[in-house]
Amino acid sequence: MSQGTLYIVSAPSGAGKSSLISALLKDNPRYDMKVSVSHTTRASRPGEENGVHYHFVSVDDFKALIEQEAFLEYAEVFGNFYGTSRLWIEEMLSKGVDIFLDIDWQGAQQIREKMPNAKSIFILPPSREELERRLNARGQDSDEVIAKRMEEARSEISHYNEYDYVIVNDDFDVALMDIKAILRAERMKQDKQYSRHHDMIDRLLD
Amino acid sequence: MSQGTLYIVSAPSGAGKSSLISALLKDNPRYDMKVSVSHTTRASRPGEENGVHYHFVSVDDFKALIEQEAFLEYAEVFGNFYGTSRLWIEEMLSKGVDIFLDIDWQGAQQIREKMPNAKSIFILPPSREELERRLNARGQDSDEVIAKRMEEARSEISHYNEYDYVIVNDDFDVALMDIKAILRAERMKQDKQYSRHHDMIDRLLD
Repeated sequence: MSQGTLYIVSAPSGAGKSSLISALLKDNPRYDMKVSVSHTTRASRPGEENGVHYHFVSVDDFKALIEQEAFLEYAEVFGNFYGTSRLWIEEMLSKGVDIFLDIDWQGAQQIREKMPNAKSIFILPPSREELERRLNARGQDSDEVIAKRMEEARSEISHYNEYDYVIVNDDFDVALMDIKAILRAERMKQDKQYSRHHDMIDRLLD
Repeated sequence: MSQGTLYIVSAPSGAGKSSLISALLKDNPRYDMKVSVSHTTRASRPGEENGVHYHFVSVDDFKALIEQEAFLEYAEVFGNFYGTSRLWIEEMLSKGVDIFLDIDWQGAQQIREKMPNAKSIFILPPSREELERRLNARGQDSDEVIAKRMEEARSEISHYNEYDYVIVNDDFDVALMDIKAILRAERMKQDKQYSRHHDMIDRLLD
């Protein structure tokens, strides 16, 4: 069984990151791709499922997990804790599952330090105009919130060059093919192929 | 215009390297993939075309090219010289063309030293039995030559772990998809994407 790969995926809001990851996981016949589900101490919102959208835990439990070094990274945002479970990710990777970690550039920096074999992918929109159009089309944010997201987008995008791969999400289907190619190619890396095919390779050299 | 990538491709004879490269180049609508054509001083054989199979040159011309450091690597085999033109490869890469270099592990080591950005791919057969079956099926070699190729195969395969990527050519169409994924993914690398999309990225950050 080959070790899975941890993929850090970042993008400004509206670039299509969540839709791309969802589309990837829909076409997942071998169940060898999963999204990392964060732990949080914030209250669940209507429609959010424990274990699917977040692992909802108490502040005491969260702090105990910090002490056990159970998190690859965690942060406090508006009084709530959010963290990425190291234990679950390592277990999945050891089973050959590729994990997607949807995280911003700051979290990405922390993960890269702790998981140097992680591969990171940045998703760019084709233009600021298109990004704004998509944010408006979602119909979930006020003009003020959209203006704020556009400012945050600039800051997030300024870190694109810290990533191994960059995908331009202009045409969704092309971008989906791009990300699939990255996953497939990473599985062809020599060390992954050896761990997958070592019996076969040993016989070739026997 | 993004810089092309130099792909070193090695495999034991019979693993399907030439067929895979031919299939790749047949589906090449943007003409952005080419195979490196070696220079040689040996006489051309019936059916061999100058500039397609080899660049046929005189020994004097070849030695002059050596002095001009025109070769990335060269070797003398049974009194004939064979070399890989650095100038042509660098010109093609600068035009954004990906170049395939069909070469053995020894040549690959020389190329890696001189072109550290080259990516290398090793193609494995699924088993020794299948490799031998394919060599027999080609019907072009005597039993003695096939026995020699099987010995050489073991030696070539022992260097598979010096390569970035390993493809197992069990099912040809799967192996072709694998190599296409590698090419596509390499084009998503951050530096390649920047050189391709720098105007767009600069506008996003404006």
